[in-house]
Amino acid sequence: SSFSQNTLHFQNLFLSSSSNSTLSTYLRALTVHPHLAGTKLAADTTTYVADHFRSHGLTTHTVDYNVLLSYPVYSSIAAHFSSGSVRHLLLTEPDRFDVVKPYHAYSPSGSVFARVVFVNYGRERDYHALEKLGVAVSGCIVVVRKGSGGGLGRGAVVEKAEEKGAIAVLIYNNDDGGDYTWREGFERGHVMRGGVGDPLSPGWAGVEGSERLGLEDSEVLKKFPKIPSLPLSFEVAETILSSLEGTSVPLEWRGTLGSKVRNVGPGPTMLNFTYQGENKMATIQNVFAVIKGSEEPDRYVLLGNHRDAWTYGAVDPSSGTAALLDIARRYSILLSSGWTPRRTIILCSWDAEEFGMIGSTEWVEQNLVNLGSKAVAYLNVDCAVQGPGFFVGSTPQLDSLVVEVTKKVKDPDTEGASVYKNWAAAGGDSNIQRLSRVDSDFAPFVQHAGVPSIDMYYGKEFPVYHTAFDSYDWMTQYGDPFFHRHAAVAGIWGLLALHLADDSILPFDYVPYANQLQFYMNILSSLLDQQTSLHPLNMSIQEFASAAKETNNESKKLRLQETSGHSVDIKNRALNDRLMLAEKGFLDADGLQGRQWFKHLVFGPPSDHESKLDFFPGIADSISRSTGMSERERLAAIQHEVWRVSRSIQRAASALRGEFT
Amino acid sequence: SSFSQNTLHFQNLFLSSSSNSTLSTYLRALTVHPHLAGTKLAADTTTYVADHFRSHGLTTHTVDYNVLLSYPVYSSIAAHFSSGSVRHLLLTEPDRFDVVKPYHAYSPSGSVFARVVFVNYGRERDYHALEKLGVAVSGCIVVVRKGSGGGLGRGAVVEKAEEKGAIAVLIYNNDDGGDYTWREGFERGHVMRGGVGDPLSPGWAGVEGSERLGLEDSEVLKKFPKIPSLPLSFEVAETILSSLEGTSVPLEWRGTLGSKVRNVGPGPTMLNFTYQGENKMATIQNVFAVIKGSEEPDRYVLLGNHRDAWTYGAVDPSSGTAALLDIARRYSILLSSGWTPRRTIILCSWDAEEFGMIGSTEWVEQNLVNLGSKAVAYLNVDCAVQGPGFFVGSTPQLDSLVVEVTKKVKDPDTEGASVYKNWAAAGGDSNIQRLSRVDSDFAPFVQHAGVPSIDMYYGKEFPVYHTAFDSYDWMTQYGDPFFHRHAAVAGIWGLLALHLADDSILPFDYVPYANQLQFYMNILSSLLDQQTSLHPLNMSIQEFASAAKETNNESKKLRLQETSGHSVDIKNRALNDRLMLAEKGFLDADGLQGRQWFKHLVFGPPSDHESKLDFFPGIADSISRSTGMSERERLAAIQHEVWRVSRSIQRAASALRGEFT
Ligand SMILES: [Ca+2]
Ligand SMILES: [Ca+2]
Ligand SMILES: [Zn+2]
Ligand SMILES: [Zn+2]
Ligand SMILES: [Zn+2]
Ligand SMILES: [Zn+2]
Repeated sequence: SSFSQNTLHFQNLFLSSSSNSTLSTYLRALTVHPHLAGTKLAADTTTYVADHFRSHGLTTHTVDYNVLLSYPVYSSIAAHFSSGSVRHLLLTEPDRFDVVKPYHAYSPSGSVFARVVFVNYGRERDYHALEKLGVAVSGCIVVVRKGSGGGLGRGAVVEKAEEKGAIAVLIYNNDDGGDYTWREGFERGHVMRGGVGDPLSPGWAGVEGSERLGLEDSEVLKKFPKIPSLPLSFEVAETILSSLEGTSVPLEWRGTLGSKVRNVGPGPTMLNFTYQGENKMATIQNVFAVIKGSEEPDRYVLLGNHRDAWTYGAVDPSSGTAALLDIARRYSILLSSGWTPRRTIILCSWDAEEFGMIGSTEWVEQNLVNLGSKAVAYLNVDCAVQGPGFFVGSTPQLDSLVVEVTKKVKDPDTEGASVYKNWAAAGGDSNIQRLSRVDSDFAPFVQHAGVPSIDMYYGKEFPVYHTAFDSYDWMTQYGDPFFHRHAAVAGIWGLLALHLADDSILPFDYVPYANQLQFYMNILSSLLDQQTSLHPLNMSIQEFASAAKETNNESKKLRLQETSGHSVDIKNRALNDRLMLAEKGFLDADGLQGRQWFKHLVFGPPSDHESKLDFFPGIADSISRSTGMSERERLAAIQHEVWRVSRSIQRAASALRGEFT
Repeated sequence: SSFSQNTLHFQNLFLSSSSNSTLSTYLRALTVHPHLAGTKLAADTTTYVADHFRSHGLTTHTVDYNVLLSYPVYSSIAAHFSSGSVRHLLLTEPDRFDVVKPYHAYSPSGSVFARVVFVNYGRERDYHALEKLGVAVSGCIVVVRKGSGGGLGRGAVVEKAEEKGAIAVLIYNNDDGGDYTWREGFERGHVMRGGVGDPLSPGWAGVEGSERLGLEDSEVLKKFPKIPSLPLSFEVAETILSSLEGTSVPLEWRGTLGSKVRNVGPGPTMLNFTYQGENKMATIQNVFAVIKGSEEPDRYVLLGNHRDAWTYGAVDPSSGTAALLDIARRYSILLSSGWTPRRTIILCSWDAEEFGMIGSTEWVEQNLVNLGSKAVAYLNVDCAVQGPGFFVGSTPQLDSLVVEVTKKVKDPDTEGASVYKNWAAAGGDSNIQRLSRVDSDFAPFVQHAGVPSIDMYYGKEFPVYHTAFDSYDWMTQYGDPFFHRHAAVAGIWGLLALHLADDSILPFDYVPYANQLQFYMNILSSLLDQQTSLHPLNMSIQEFASAAKETNNESKKLRLQETSGHSVDIKNRALNDRLMLAEKGFLDADGLQGRQWFKHLVFGPPSDHESKLDFFPGIADSISRSTGMSERERLAAIQHEVWRVSRSIQRAASALRGEFT
């Protein structure tokens, strides 16, 4: 049978090998104890994953790094109310002794005694609103709520508070998802800034014996917060906030605030806040299972998920780890029925993602040159299931593949429907997310190495995020009682990889990329006045669009001349090389100004966390960067960044065409 | 017959198609009039080259750029001697009216009236010697000799003089090659600093309508000299220098100085110096002839030579252009006898090299992404013949190929001998030059794009360099009377390309690269004291050396399994991809500190033109950069650069192995 019939057979075999019970078994085993990066318990989870891969006949190895992690030593808060009474606040979930104390990783140690001010989501506009009401936060301890409404990340909240003169920050999660139990949860998390990976080895792999920057190095210092911070539970926060007097809460904040929160302070309540943390070097381990390609072993399809968790990690990340282990099981079924992928597939289990994507970032930095020329795509699943509803992000050339694959996988929540049906009904297929954020392991692949990537998960958000309640029980009661959603993610994830590993011509379609760039340009032109010319951007996008169309025609033609034999036709290889190289065009060796680790000029985080733009980060930065320069200089900087983005799009078009001028 | 017998046949056909008369005909035509970049006459030469390619059946196209060039408007020097007499000095070669006035391209305009000081080669140590003798140059016009003894480039001479407070610079060529006629020659040339390519488009192609930095932009300003300068002939210089009084010439300068130069001044002679130049945008044209590869059309072997000259350019560069045209002729013979190269060959005729490698640099910047993944090698010939003796520079993985090819080409000066025989007898094969300089078009390929490269020429140097005497007559009388050396260069150049285009496994041997790195480390360790650890460098070189040996074994094995058929064996393709990718490992995206356009951390120019190191430019810079930092900071900077170089060597080893950790 021809090669493609062959692949269809194995794709169907993969789809039919779906099972829920194996997924729940894996999740049960993965969540029996916490597995915080760098700890003894985490090493057991590492062994569990490696043994699973090996027991299914996959060639497995681990790679170690020695990196700076951060753990809590001591924390306490005593509330001094105006009544004179003093109350020591409970700073941990009740009777969870095997779980790490709630803390913000990399927070400095410190002890302060000061009045409290409530600053809503801690955004610029929130501080602005307080200023207008004459409420100053400098010298105070600020309490900040975090929730889907706010959008500011933990690190950004502390950075902004520091900028405004606060001397400590307490962050609580405002969404209880409609169940009071979760109000006792504390959201752990790191508060580093501006970068990913091991802070002491920016741009290179933090392996044993490698170069380390000193903690006093300016490049290291700027990543660390200068004021201490701690997470609070909703309940503890309400205790503090309900005791505040002074100015009443601004009208526009009230909507989603609990009724008990009436005033913003400052005070009269004073907090005696103490935190002691310890940053120390620790060994972390990535685990890899490699299935060597038969025809093109030097082309790699990567499936990645992080293994480390703040607590039991049932949702984050073990639901994803369970799916990865199930894919290993299902691939071993294919292998034993005679399948070998055309290209090499690697299952990657990353460590220390919760400390800033450290495991994946060190591996990307260590393998940057080979990734640049040999990695077909990176498929990320962090939390496989957080609740109902399929969500996916991707670099646009993979959009079409995502649509095609979701049509073949059963929907977990509606009998007889495909994932695509419900997803499209909810408008999902017309707003596939883009990968500009740094909240999971796709960040180093897209933003540093320019590897086409996908990130997917079920469920918009969940109330036990990074708390001690993220347990197997929560998952079986709320997340995915029958593990159908886990099975759907494993099905989509594994089938995507099968296409990328076995299709003779890579399933990349760059027309959606051109459309997305066009869409971004339109947003930009509505934001910028006439003084900035977007003509260069328009020209390069047209050039890219025509290269995308031509390449699609070539792909169609070559797909028709399906080679019966297994030999690699050099024409296919040459076209595939061009399809892979195009994304590298968007990288600029000089990177983003002041953040040169970020090389991608289309997808990447803006420095200003409250920027309206979540694309063209260099342009976003030049717009929000206004201090210390004249208006003329600011406009020149914006125009220069527009040119840089235009040239990156031209480079991508040139790589897609594969020809020299 | 097997593929390799086939290639041997065509290689012999190429060798037997050598002819001297065609080369002299081409040189005659190329040098009939000057062809200065951006001028009408140069356009005729462009047409001549393009028509030649087309007339030999090669697919030919041109690529235009719009770049900043520089031409002289007016120059005059009146010498005011102590006797009161005034003499207007002759500032051009006698009766050469069609040749551009002697000038320094990009020199600012200016008019000064000041005393003269002779500063020998204008190096730091020369100024130091004068200071010790109480001779100050600030406010003076300095006269500098340039010659093989000095080693400082024109731009560096003016930069140093500016630093020392001189208000104008006059440079003369001290070597007359034993013939007084050449003492009337003026050495034209540009005096830009610190970079190559169009000064207004650093890092991107200066095509019509592209972004241009303003002349006031700091990145542009720092490339332009601040004080005016002009070249002098030996004779005019002697007139001035022989009139100087004041302090006598330091003893250590006397050796190669003419007897008339007895004192260094200052004065009493005063010069009324005026120069007016004009920097203006001009169109330049690169010409390309493309011979498409039959098996691997997306792999490119590039042969390049620049076409623009300061005057008639018989040596520089038309001797190289003649060789390139002859290769076109000889390849067309092979083509008409049934040959097509396995990989694509491109003959490149660059424009505006004399203004700072502008034609080649703009093309490299325009095609950077595709060059990175598809360029096999770049073979540069600037001046094919300057005199007797074969000289070659290369990135070390091409050393073995150079040796192999020189053994098959007849020596031009000794009957019955191969080029190799005489070259090796002169110790040539054991000190192949390395490509760290920026004096020809290999610079952007190696130092910006990391493409393996070779540069070759006959003759160590020549006395009519960049003067009006660089004419066809000089070549027939002195350079290469029978054009045998031209034929040898065309033979070596064309045969190198045939191997790179047709060998099934690329003729790259990375063991010499490991040896060269080891040699460099030994020099470094003798220079640096114990406070800098070279352990990381040593470890990475060992890692690279073992990867090089293993890859050599793989290459040997695959070469034996010669595929009879023409189909590309994926194993060959995969190994060749690794052999090409290794050089990219030496590139660091962040580039050299302060000179980020230079990405190669092994080969590149040091910022300090008088640095003892002509390798590891980042380390060389950190050693010579001492101002404004403590000793501790300086040592830390040196150690950091050692780490960066070590990691680049590790990246190269990883690319050579082609595997992920
Ligand atoms: Ca690192
Ligand atoms: Ca340029
Ligand atoms: Zn996670
Ligand atoms: Zn997480
Ligand atoms: Zn030249
Ligand atoms: Zn020249």
